Amino acid sequence: MTRPTVRAAHGSTLTAKSWQTEAPMRMLMNNLDPEVAERPEDLVVYGGTGKAARSWEAYDAIVRTLETLEDDETLLVQSGKPVGVFRTHEWAPRVLIANSNLVGDWATWPEFRKLEAEGLTMYGQMTAGSWIYIGTQGILQGTYETFGAVARKRFGGTLAGTLTLTGGAGGMGGAQPLAVTMNEGVALVVDVDETRLERRVKHGYLDEYWTDLDEAVDRAVAAKNEGRALSVGIVGNAATVFTELLERGTPIDIVTDQTSAHDPLSYLPEGISVADWHAEAERDAAGFTDKARASMAKQVRAMVGFMDAGAEVFDYGNSIREESRLGGFERAFEFPGFVPAYIRPLFCEGKGPFRWAALSGDPADIAVTDRAILELFPEDEHLARWITKAQEKVHFEGLPARICWLGYQERHLAGLRFNEMVASGELSAPVVIGRDHLDSGSVASPYRETESMADGSDAIADWPLLNALLNTASGATWVSIHHGGGVGIGRSIHAGQVIVADGTELAAQKIERVLVNDPGTGVMRHVDAGYDRAAEVAKERGLRVPMLEGKAT
Amino acid sequence: MTRPTVRAAHGSTLTAKSWQTEAPMRMLMNNLDPEVAERPEDLVVYGGTGKAARSWEAYDAIVRTLETLEDDETLLVQSGKPVGVFRTHEWAPRVLIANSNLVGDWATWPEFRKLEAEGLTMYGQMTAGSWIYIGTQGILQGTYETFGAVARKRFGGTLAGTLTLTGGAGGMGGAQPLAVTMNEGVALVVDVDETRLERRVKHGYLDEYWTDLDEAVDRAVAAKNEGRALSVGIVGNAATVFTELLERGTPIDIVTDQTSAHDPLSYLPEGISVADWHAEAERDAAGFTDKARASMAKQVRAMVGFMDAGAEVFDYGNSIREESRLGGFERAFEFPGFVPAYIRPLFCEGKGPFRWAALSGDPADIAVTDRAILELFPEDEHLARWITKAQEKVHFEGLPARICWLGYQERHLAGLRFNEMVASGELSAPVVIGRDHLDSGSVASPYRETESMADGSDAIADWPLLNALLNTASGATWVSIHHGGGVGIGRSIHAGQVIVADGTELAAQKIERVLVNDPGTGVMRHVDAGYDRAAEVAKERGLRVPMLEGKAT
Ligand SMILES: NC(=O)c1ccc[n+]([C@@H]2O[C@H](COP(=O)([O-])OP(=O)(O)OC[C@H]3O[C@@H](n4cnc5c(N)ncnc54)[C@H](O)[C@@H]3O)[C@@H](O)[C@H]2O)c1
Ligand SMILES: NC(=O)c1ccc[n+]([C@@H]2O[C@H](COP(=O)([O-])OP(=O)(O)OC[C@H]3O[C@@H](n4cnc5c(N)ncnc54)[C@H](O)[C@@H]3O)[C@@H](O)[C@H]2O)c1
Repeated sequence: MTRPTVRAAHGSTLTAKSWQTEAPMRMLMNNLDPEVAERPEDLVVYGGTGKAARSWEAYDAIVRTLETLEDDETLLVQSGKPVGVFRTHEWAPRVLIANSNLVGDWATWPEFRKLEAEGLTMYGQMTAGSWIYIGTQGILQGTYETFGAVARKRFGGTLAGTLTLTGGAGGMGGAQPLAVTMNEGVALVVDVDETRLERRVKHGYLDEYWTDLDEAVDRAVAAKNEGRALSVGIVGNAATVFTELLERGTPIDIVTDQTSAHDPLSYLPEGISVADWHAEAERDAAGFTDKARASMAKQVRAMVGFMDAGAEVFDYGNSIREESRLGGFERAFEFPGFVPAYIRPLFCEGKGPFRWAALSGDPADIAVTDRAILELFPEDEHLARWITKAQEKVHFEGLPARICWLGYQERHLAGLRFNEMVASGELSAPVVIGRDHLDSGSVASPYRETESMADGSDAIADWPLLNALLNTASGATWVSIHHGGGVGIGRSIHAGQVIVADGTELAAQKIERVLVNDPGTGVMRHVDAGYDRAAEVAKERGLRVPMLEGKAT
Repeated sequence: MTRPTVRAAHGSTLTAKSWQTEAPMRMLMNNLDPEVAERPEDLVVYGGTGKAARSWEAYDAIVRTLETLEDDETLLVQSGKPVGVFRTHEWAPRVLIANSNLVGDWATWPEFRKLEAEGLTMYGQMTAGSWIYIGTQGILQGTYETFGAVARKRFGGTLAGTLTLTGGAGGMGGAQPLAVTMNEGVALVVDVDETRLERRVKHGYLDEYWTDLDEAVDRAVAAKNEGRALSVGIVGNAATVFTELLERGTPIDIVTDQTSAHDPLSYLPEGISVADWHAEAERDAAGFTDKARASMAKQVRAMVGFMDAGAEVFDYGNSIREESRLGGFERAFEFPGFVPAYIRPLFCEGKGPFRWAALSGDPADIAVTDRAILELFPEDEHLARWITKAQEKVHFEGLPARICWLGYQERHLAGLRFNEMVASGELSAPVVIGRDHLDSGSVASPYRETESMADGSDAIADWPLLNALLNTASGATWVSIHHGGGVGIGRSIHAGQVIVADGTELAAQKIERVLVNDPGTGVMRHVDAGYDRAAEVAKERGLRVPMLEGKAT
């Protein structure tokens, strides 16, 4: 079935009965906007096969239901399909979502794919099935933060004069070259699919790309030697190119990867062409998986080789270490994941990827919110630098949106201000405020967000479930619980929330609770795991932790 | 640390600030009342190691927090430990609970036990960690329903003249002999632990028990031949006794089992004495597991032998088929689980184990509610028979409680009536209304509640998560999400809710939503799986299913 292009309505005229239901409807549509989604015709938003709705029939039913949903009703969505409407109350979320969840013993890719093929589930990724993907900017901020942390840790605060090698220029990975150049470094990005590199150049995330490896390397090394920021794409297989560059002794300082390694069918093995990719994966999923893992093992062997040679090497949250271990490479886990290496200290403060989108569709509304953020946190230079660079470099995709990392007792200040500005007319329509599932209190993911927790609680999944329940109990507009996400089936459970700032007093009350409580669960989770910084934050900012209260004398 | 005995306060004087918080406090305490709990000193309530709180320190902190919690605050409990207090609103649950949840690849017994030993989690079973266990009566009703269905299916509506063989007389299994005699049959119940049989006799759930097998069998067979109801316990290992009785050709009509097979360390293998049990299990968990599975394989081989000989054989939800398959017995899955065999038609109507407890502690309050139920559903003879027999046979344990199976658009009628009777003073104090996690819409469990679903969706775990989110959004007083439960780690995800009827108008509004929506998710789940009866119920009783609405022309 060919479908007309999906694009969210802009402006302040409602299609649904209120902004509470208009907002999830526009954000679902926005996730499928061709400017935003990687393969909108298949409902795929990003991250391999991360979808916004199970099928077009399901999509139509969701839209139809949201159009008539009342402000005391709640729609239930099971893996992208609307399954029920129930009477609740005005403090309740309008939509509750559970995507891709499987009982533990069945939480495997083959079982998931079987159920997906039978039409019983879909892959929700993190913000695809929860309708708060905002295009490549979402990952850009996180990647910018991460490379900034790498710069501070190893290179005196700047990547100037360094060369970063990475794989994957897809929906998420495409942020890497820009994040490196924003940190003043040089990036070499390998992707098998030329169209991906082309798209990144078009959107200003990548400076140039080459099909000839020598040309690409020469230009990158020259820029590194001149201390000049530059990002260079290479069309090629990362397993091949990483190995080749290691053998050549190319002067690489930092190595990571963001191919879709979490799903072996979305990683192209050596020896298969891009043209044959999907047919091959479908024809023989098990055989393809083995080949993909063998190629990943080759790529990760090269990564460990770079590490041995002194480079800063990290896993960027795509499970490539585990997959290459399954592919037979023993030393895969010798380099760390990016969270324990760089992000956990931020999580201890409840800091994570806070984001919002202007339902008006008007970029001027984001400019207004940018100014509000700069005014609210005048002392935060790091934040100011990001906002300024983002205004310059970020090309909006779909509804204009902004992301910045804010922590516990910070996010609600922004939310309340936005809500006031909706009420006063400074913003031309309501905004939605949400975040990635990758956040301080919302995820259990032993290869990524909860890798190497201080107390060994990496695999405990109670925390994201409590986060989802609490957001539901605090007034979020929609709440989601997903399995899989960026690291794949069997490897994570995570939750999301989005809240609408429609300028009402009720919205203000909800915002105050949700945007305090949501990052609060992150601080709580890290207090419980024994992080001193989290305990300090809880104490300073007034988070009640019952087990600590008893100990006071 | 020796602890004073825990017993919930009775009467209508509050210790906490309101009934919203008094109720979870009393129900937590009630779960640990020695009349209710199997091993209160270890905080173990039932089902192997199902606990109400992680530790006594955690218990104290929960109680302390509930005593001061406000009616717009919410306490978060992570596997039996209180981890945070957040400001929410008066429609929000007062307590949100997540127990025993693990990320899929780590959802194994060894990993769980390691984390439990490190103090990072606890086993919540179904109603242990969610504070709505009401003693053996809880299971009695379900077991009564099940044996009633067996009687209707195979024996002309009564078990008179039949002999049922089963294993396990623990917290749940102990209901079997009484459920059989209530259905007019004869039961032989094997348990290795004499104290368990003794306790069942003391509470009137078992008529007698013997250490001599011949004696026990003779008495049971005599009763069968005379068509006289009788329940007889045997002290012995089920693997040994089942095999022996098969070899002897004892005239057994029905065979099942309710030892704690879901957790191999809670199943005593042949060759180990009760006295050495726990020391052995601790010394060598892996070796003990192998031995337990070998004994289970032997027991299940005998069960299949009885089936081959024409008996009605079913798995009673303790994973003994899967464990004995792991123990090397190939034919384990030749007999069905009890849910597809007998219970699913009830689930299609949203029917399941509705229950309530009198916070007053006064049995007269339950008598009042019993009368209300009989008045509300005068046409339901099956229900009337149960209430009458329960009044006669059920010995209250802890706070007086009642259970009966009610469906979609029935439960809220009872809840609203109870709430009115609290308001009017017909009841001397508020009641709590909850249910087992084993219910129509609240569980994904491919070896039990969702075994052999019509569409193959057995392992999809979105449904219980949606159930928990919706109950949180509808006004439940506490909500829980558990992993493991009756079938063990890796094998189920399930959710619970409890709501307080305190006689207020707000409680009535919440009750109306929660007790409609909660069983409504069960009807919804079975509509989605393609059960015609569920689709009929949805249509007749007004449940909105968006995918069906579009199809209308
Ligand atoms: N670190 C994080 O915070 C984070 C966040 C989201 C996603 N992720 C993970 O990052 C990965 C990438 O996500 P995405 O949304 O960009 O996925 P995507 O599917 O949009 O892009 C993956 C890219 O990898 C390319 N590719 C596949 N095999 C290759 C090979 N052998 N050599 C070179 N290129 C190859 C593909 O052509 C594609 O362009 C996923 O595993 C995702 O789960 C990480
Ligand atoms: N069908 C259902 O609806 C349902 C509901 C709840 C629990 N269950 C399951 O039923 C099982 C029993 O639950 P419970 O709460 O009674 O557990 P329990 O631990 O209280 O009792 C188990 C009993 O089995 C006995 N036992 C152990 N090994 C034995 C052996 N080899 N031979 C004979 N007896 C043996 C123990 O001595 C104990 O008395 C569990 O697996 C539980 O998960 C089923």
